Amino acid sequence: VAEPLGVTLLGCGTVGGAVARLLGEPRSRAAVERACGRRVELRHVVVRDPTRPRDGVDPDLVSDDARAALADPGIALVIEAMGGTDPTRGHLLDAFAAGKDVVTANKQLLARHGAELLEAAAAAGVRLRFEAAACGAVPVVRALRESFAAADVTLVEGIVNGTSNFILSSMAASGATYDEALAEATRLGYAEADPSEDVNGADAAAKIAILATVAFHARVAMDDVAYEGIDRIHADDLAYAREFGHVVKLLGRAELIDGRVLAMVSPALLAVGHPLASVGGSRNAVLVASPSAGEISLSGPGAGGRETASAIIGDVVSLLNARHEGPLERGEGYRSLERFPVEDRVGSFYVHVDVADRPGVLARVASAFGSADVSIRTVIQRGGVGGEEARLVLVTHPAAQRQVRAALDEIAAAPDLARGAPRALPVLT
Amino acid sequence: VAEPLGVTLLGCGTVGGAVARLLGEPRSRAAVERACGRRVELRHVVVRDPTRPRDGVDPDLVSDDARAALADPGIALVIEAMGGTDPTRGHLLDAFAAGKDVVTANKQLLARHGAELLEAAAAAGVRLRFEAAACGAVPVVRALRESFAAADVTLVEGIVNGTSNFILSSMAASGATYDEALAEATRLGYAEADPSEDVNGADAAAKIAILATVAFHARVAMDDVAYEGIDRIHADDLAYAREFGHVVKLLGRAELIDGRVLAMVSPALLAVGHPLASVGGSRNAVLVASPSAGEISLSGPGAGGRETASAIIGDVVSLLNARHEGPLERGEGYRSLERFPVEDRVGSFYVHVDVADRPGVLARVASAFGSADVSIRTVIQRGGVGGEEARLVLVTHPAAQRQVRAALDEIAAAPDLARGAPRALPVLT
Repeated sequence: VAEPLGVTLLGCGTVGGAVARLLGEPRSRAAVERACGRRVELRHVVVRDPTRPRDGVDPDLVSDDARAALADPGIALVIEAMGGTDPTRGHLLDAFAAGKDVVTANKQLLARHGAELLEAAAAAGVRLRFEAAACGAVPVVRALRESFAAADVTLVEGIVNGTSNFILSSMAASGATYDEALAEATRLGYAEADPSEDVNGADAAAKIAILATVAFHARVAMDDVAYEGIDRIHADDLAYAREFGHVVKLLGRAELIDGRVLAMVSPALLAVGHPLASVGGSRNAVLVASPSAGEISLSGPGAGGRETASAIIGDVVSLLNARHEGPLERGEGYRSLERFPVEDRVGSFYVHVDVADRPGVLARVASAFGSADVSIRTVIQRGGVGGEEARLVLVTHPAAQRQVRAALDEIAAAPDLARGAPRALPVLT
Repeated sequence: VAEPLGVTLLGCGTVGGAVARLLGEPRSRAAVERACGRRVELRHVVVRDPTRPRDGVDPDLVSDDARAALADPGIALVIEAMGGTDPTRGHLLDAFAAGKDVVTANKQLLARHGAELLEAAAAAGVRLRFEAAACGAVPVVRALRESFAAADVTLVEGIVNGTSNFILSSMAASGATYDEALAEATRLGYAEADPSEDVNGADAAAKIAILATVAFHARVAMDDVAYEGIDRIHADDLAYAREFGHVVKLLGRAELIDGRVLAMVSPALLAVGHPLASVGGSRNAVLVASPSAGEISLSGPGAGGRETASAIIGDVVSLLNARHEGPLERGEGYRSLERFPVEDRVGSFYVHVDVADRPGVLARVASAFGSADVSIRTVIQRGGVGGEEARLVLVTHPAAQRQVRAALDEIAAAPDLARGAPRALPVLT
């Protein structure tokens, strides 16, 4: 019988606690042992406040001494579930230096310091795995990394933030405002106490950076992702989208355009027949397209402590069943690809402008689009309640984002015309 | 620079030809080399008729001499795309004995001789991979094998035969008969010249045997799968299903019930809201459920030479990037699980009986279900066209399949009652 594998767990919040419990429950312990050929034993649990009692975690393992827990020769693997970039980044570098493999669920750390960490792991001859950082238990990182490694992936697109999808789905179902839907999400546990990274698009952008890196074999970092969240979406945008036969989703997208990488996160209109349009509640779903493999989709619960912990255990199993030595491991084979500016992206846009309700308004708005060389496919004009204000909602023909932006800037700059900032969302097919 | 890796390809039909082309095209060659850290070179292509010209395949590589092509010390890996169980099984055993890793797309071979082959590979210290045998480029084998290896999977359920799904989808869309839809599928290339294994359920059963083996870490062979195809489905079954708010799909299902394995393939009724109900055309989709990972779904094109070839190349990449040594590779950790007889499975059933149109018929049918202790949830009675014959269509409350079978046997045995054999399909939730 092989020696048990000693593990240090960094962090014991929702995800870390679930990892500790999965490694402790007899049923899942047995499944891990069967799949790994040896027992996996938690030796240290590093937390900020070791005095706090933690359900299902042996108090003797808990300490705040990361240095000792990472250097312990009795452990071979570190599971990082503490989040944040500091001091986490330093802990991971220490772990590599001490010869430990690392499994992490930390998307922000990877999206900001992924290249440095992968290089440090390769230099130390250890391995860094991060399935749990992208979409909970949905095995999209493994699929991109191995199954599609030679498939020449051209597009990765998905709903990768469960909180935002829950809020948009509930706004669409009930007509609730953004604030009402966010409050409901918080009450039901779909939004954290501080949901800002979820609703402002930063969480989704980090995931898209990770997925693009693996999909295209090219370093794509957080800074390369143009992102926008759902926090400025109004209930009437969803209602107008429905009139156009579309739904609004927070969509992350990374694509290769003429050999350049475009990575973006934005609320977007999807036709109701789009495979991602029906992804409801807090679920995540990712489409991967390549000329050889066709269009593959993967979906599942995007978050949740237990699901994320399950993805972490999957990485542990994979590490224990193989010695990885190829270029996927050594961090070789990364291409250097230029960025495609999101402003140059060509597509249709949904535009919402609140305007003064007086004759000639439509003509002036239309002329702003005309001078930016953007043609309009459909327009809906609605009088405001008091007769004072009206709404113009339109969908453009394909145009570069910078052209649409120019038209909106011209409209916004005319104080007698627009009331409030016009809103534009991409329409994706 | 590492030495190129020599490969022998067995078979050069739709899938084999696509593998040869993927390994030959400059774009995909470069992607393979980037992912593997070395060139992958086709050294032999073994076919039955070497005189036939083959597009995109160097004729100097083609021969019918499998023995020499497998023993060549210049190759390290064999890709098997010839299909069938004989002589293919012998070729694989020869390859293992010669120390070659093998990647195969052969579901029937694996479903019938998988245990023997995996053991032979393990004994020879080589590896056998078979992602392409289950659902084309949909990476479900890898997900089950690695991501969910310790997740304690309880259910794998899916639409795993593209031909059947195409036929059922087109019957549902157009009201075509089975024969008309099959003819259309053949014309469009979605059905092979001999579609029998696709439409009689054998192909789906082989895939379910493979998926169940990987999902449950338990040997499940073709013989353990109770299967039935779509070849006896009538257009009116689809129409009645719609009246009940359901669609008909050919569903493969493997589940753990009280620690026993139930594996089955059958046309089944799915509620329109079921995640698999909207899978159209020739697409495949698989749901995997586990208490820790939740419910994950994967979908994509189920067949197609290029897609299957892409899955094969994914396996090659994975083999070249790791030395696998754990229990997943050594074929250890397999549990011995009892079979759960499909006749004991409890669920609702849809039942279609053509009956003589005379008073008392419904009472006699109802009494047959009553004496088998099956209660009926809904019943639709329709008079036949000539007034001579009528149709009873009903959905039962949950009952064991053997009870429903007993009721149908009683009805079929009364020649003055039933016209033709009654049909029953499971209703899955």
